[in-house]
Amino acid sequence: MRASRFFVSTLKEAPSDAEIVSHKLMMRAGMIKRLGSGIYSYMPMGLRVIRKVEAIVREEMNRAGAIEMLMPVVQPAELWQETGRWDKMGPELMRVKDRHGRDYAIQPTSEEVITDVVRTEIKSYRQLPVNFYHIQTKFRDERRPRFGLMRGREFTMKDAYSFDRDVEGMQRSYQLMYDAYVAIFNRFGLQFRAVAADNGAIGGSGSHEFHVIADTGEDALVYCSGSDFAANMEAAEAPGLLAQRQPPSQPLTKTPTPGKTRCEDVAELLGLPLSQTVKSVVLMADAAEEGGEKQLWLLLLRGDHELNEVKASKVPGLGQFRFASETEIVEAFGTTPGYLGPIGTARPVKIVADRTVANMNDFVCGANEAGFHYTGANWGRDIPEPVVCDLRNVVEGDASPDGKGVLAIQRGIEVGHVFQLGTRYSADMKATFLDVNGKPALMQMGCYGIGITRILGAAIEQNFDDKGIVWPASIAPFEVVLCPMGYDRSAMVKEETDRLYAALQAAGVDVIVDDRGERPGVMFADWELIGVPHRVVIGERGLKDGSLEYQGRRDAAATPVALADMAEFIRGKLQA
Amino acid sequence: MRASRFFVSTLKEAPSDAEIVSHKLMMRAGMIKRLGSGIYSYMPMGLRVIRKVEAIVREEMNRAGAIEMLMPVVQPAELWQETGRWDKMGPELMRVKDRHGRDYAIQPTSEEVITDVVRTEIKSYRQLPVNFYHIQTKFRDERRPRFGLMRGREFTMKDAYSFDRDVEGMQRSYQLMYDAYVAIFNRFGLQFRAVAADNGAIGGSGSHEFHVIADTGEDALVYCSGSDFAANMEAAEAPGLLAQRQPPSQPLTKTPTPGKTRCEDVAELLGLPLSQTVKSVVLMADAAEEGGEKQLWLLLLRGDHELNEVKASKVPGLGQFRFASETEIVEAFGTTPGYLGPIGTARPVKIVADRTVANMNDFVCGANEAGFHYTGANWGRDIPEPVVCDLRNVVEGDASPDGKGVLAIQRGIEVGHVFQLGTRYSADMKATFLDVNGKPALMQMGCYGIGITRILGAAIEQNFDDKGIVWPASIAPFEVVLCPMGYDRSAMVKEETDRLYAALQAAGVDVIVDDRGERPGVMFADWELIGVPHRVVIGERGLKDGSLEYQGRRDAAATPVALADMAEFIRGKLQA
Repeated sequence: MRASRFFVSTLKEAPSDAEIVSHKLMMRAGMIKRLGSGIYSYMPMGLRVIRKVEAIVREEMNRAGAIEMLMPVVQPAELWQETGRWDKMGPELMRVKDRHGRDYAIQPTSEEVITDVVRTEIKSYRQLPVNFYHIQTKFRDERRPRFGLMRGREFTMKDAYSFDRDVEGMQRSYQLMYDAYVAIFNRFGLQFRAVAADNGAIGGSGSHEFHVIADTGEDALVYCSGSDFAANMEAAEAPGLLAQRQPPSQPLTKTPTPGKTRCEDVAELLGLPLSQTVKSVVLMADAAEEGGEKQLWLLLLRGDHELNEVKASKVPGLGQFRFASETEIVEAFGTTPGYLGPIGTARPVKIVADRTVANMNDFVCGANEAGFHYTGANWGRDIPEPVVCDLRNVVEGDASPDGKGVLAIQRGIEVGHVFQLGTRYSADMKATFLDVNGKPALMQMGCYGIGITRILGAAIEQNFDDKGIVWPASIAPFEVVLCPMGYDRSAMVKEETDRLYAALQAAGVDVIVDDRGERPGVMFADWELIGVPHRVVIGERGLKDGSLEYQGRRDAAATPVALADMAEFIRGKLQA
Repeated sequence: MRASRFFVSTLKEAPSDAEIVSHKLMMRAGMIKRLGSGIYSYMPMGLRVIRKVEAIVREEMNRAGAIEMLMPVVQPAELWQETGRWDKMGPELMRVKDRHGRDYAIQPTSEEVITDVVRTEIKSYRQLPVNFYHIQTKFRDERRPRFGLMRGREFTMKDAYSFDRDVEGMQRSYQLMYDAYVAIFNRFGLQFRAVAADNGAIGGSGSHEFHVIADTGEDALVYCSGSDFAANMEAAEAPGLLAQRQPPSQPLTKTPTPGKTRCEDVAELLGLPLSQTVKSVVLMADAAEEGGEKQLWLLLLRGDHELNEVKASKVPGLGQFRFASETEIVEAFGTTPGYLGPIGTARPVKIVADRTVANMNDFVCGANEAGFHYTGANWGRDIPEPVVCDLRNVVEGDASPDGKGVLAIQRGIEVGHVFQLGTRYSADMKATFLDVNGKPALMQMGCYGIGITRILGAAIEQNFDDKGIVWPASIAPFEVVLCPMGYDRSAMVKEETDRLYAALQAAGVDVIVDDRGERPGVMFADWELIGVPHRVVIGERGLKDGSLEYQGRRDAAATPVALADMAEFIRGKLQA
């Protein structure tokens, strides 16, 4: 490619609405252009990266036996009604009416459509397994779109859907996709981690997320360096930190703690470790789940621990919950938040203790009276034995659930997700096949997504410096940029530039020559901002010595390379 | 590709809603699957064709200097309001509200978005010309979607937009695109014709349509075999068929013609040629165009000619018209349709005569009295001289407007359209640049569309037989199919099939081997229906003689080809 025939458009400053580095750099490098809230045009430079990401995804999906097709963006509501998602999904699902008033969804994913295709196309077990995928424009009407391509509304996703005869088959298909994802993210040249995840709203029986590691990631990833345990924070099981409960050694004592509503402050006042305190979280369970009655729940966590809301939602009866209002709390506990505890509530509440709390003795908790806490509280003696659940987030140093070491935590950006769906969709949509015995059976489904456009943002969050983006070569808009010094002034420079350009093109290298006639400073700054991984400078001075200057995007300085060796040198760099 | 790892799904019968051959064959060959009215999933077999069409389009667009980007499907209404198209476009424009109640269009084209991009990105004449294109999902809420991909609602289109400093530049950009389109349609291997067209609703100053020639085409194309004149029916100028008016030779005579309301019947009754009769078409002009007054118009055509509505709409004052209602006609003419004419109307009407009619003498026309016509009617003597316009469709044998021969007519399917837009959009959206004198000037625009998915339907309408589709090799889902007789039974067949498969793959041939284990009859029927252009049968009998059977999709019989020569033979066929 010649830059004079391409569209290079860089900015000195990012627009003020760009909050994170990848958004800022993509705007400055002219990769995307904002059209509306969470809606971007992909400019030529950005589209090249998208196409490279798509090509890698496509190759590995095909290699894994998945078959590409293309499902529509605008999808009839009827199918979404069959699975109940038309009603269950909130305003994220963009809905539109046609000229006849018929309802359609603008697809955020395509479970319904593919299941509709498959239930009519697949009749016999002999046609299974099958795995279809497409790479298509998606829309999700986010409440607060932000961070450029990281949380946009319109985006490109690769979504695949496997159909199997039985659960074992589904698990094999799932493993094939898991392995394909590992191959894909390795080829992207990104540091990533696959973590066990909660299935969440999409339903089904097992899932993993694929995260690009980045300090700026929104998600906390939990892993064990001594084993292959890895899960996201929602799914990482927390051990009880106390192996066994010690017997009571202190009397229950109501102690004045005026103005001390946080565990930290109470511990400081009393001269006790924070790990001796217990904090109270009050939740209101959705009436629908409790036979028409609203039910208040008291969840107890150690003072230095944090509630994990996904775990809370798995407590039987808490499937749908919200945090209780202050009015509801005062009514049930007789006091305001800050002094709540399990002893002597004004009305009965359901009490659940985190695993660690259940083994604590002589602990501190609120006395349900403003300005007072209890010390020396003990289960069995002062409070009935509680229901015990895993309620907290793990922390660094917790024992790994597999018993093979301790947990560490790092930040990640979710870019892929694989799900075992089982019959979540095939049952609602009656997607059956005739099994080996000629009996109708429900297909076992899996679904597998990769956020194509989000990869761009995640790759940048992991790979940038103060000059701009540092693309891995496999997804860079160009692998190599040639910067001639005086392309239009020096016949020698032009000739050698054109020669190297032709040699690299012949070798299959994706190379751009900057023939725009810009000053060296502008050229260098542009391509460093854009993040092309390899740069060659062709200048008269070097040519007189028979050499060119090579500089890798992360190199501190340039290296002279003999003119005759440069094409081979570059090929070596790209194969490295 | 191995068929066992692909998805082959053929049908014996097309669904009953498939009216035309391309729709039927695409459904039967498993290329598309209906999701809703005018909305289709592209199945793996169909997607392969789409991708090949896209690749050819992309290559030729790039070669012509256009730059690929990708604009969003969901576009803010504000931009569409700037050009007035938000209001002007009817229900074909699919509109959607987001969770905050803001309006968006689901793009049918992207003039507004690209003009918005360019007005902020392009500041100087030095950045012009530039031509951006994208290949993206479009939606047009057709009143009556039908014919499969030919008149769908969701479809894929390549749309390009050029921006120039001045009209001459725009015309150069237009010619580049015109030439690129010729290259593209040649590479598709389709018979096509570019015809001059009316700009219509999109506005601007010149355009050509690209049509795939097919007897089943919806459009009539007019061309001159003696020159390069070609236009669609709307744009083809019709000559006056009479060079000069002869003087009156008959008296004006009111003649009884009871029950004869059609020119054909009147001519027969009176024993006169149809070309001696004149028919009346009554139009009502939109009140808005005529200063608040509704205005009735009488258009006169020779009895054997047809009204061209686009030409009628170009008569000054008739920009917006509809056919008059019977009530309006009776009120103005004093009688019902069938006996209307220019002589003695009950109220004054505006009269326009087609060029041919204006030179007729002694003609027959309605007498504005039920059951009566005039014979011997003459301009000047019986009726004031009329306004004269080109109002009719041309017919085969008409003189070409360039004076170089006579016109012929053939049917076509519109698959591409190039427009000179001038400042139609840049003026509304204030898309200016600083010209060589540092003064702001409006950009001169062109736009260029190709209906990617429609190409599939058009290619089939031109290339099919009673067995199925006959794809040109350049856009066939596979170039070659290998049909082994007993792949799983005969080691020799398997070995030679795999060897040929590998040899063809190594030669860059897009080949599929049918390893599904189907019977020969099923295999042959499937691939003939799907339309793969080259077939090789590998059987034990032939192998014993060292030969395989080759059959081109249009060949009546197979040709034996030596085993060792087959790969080269196929390559020769593909290069032919």
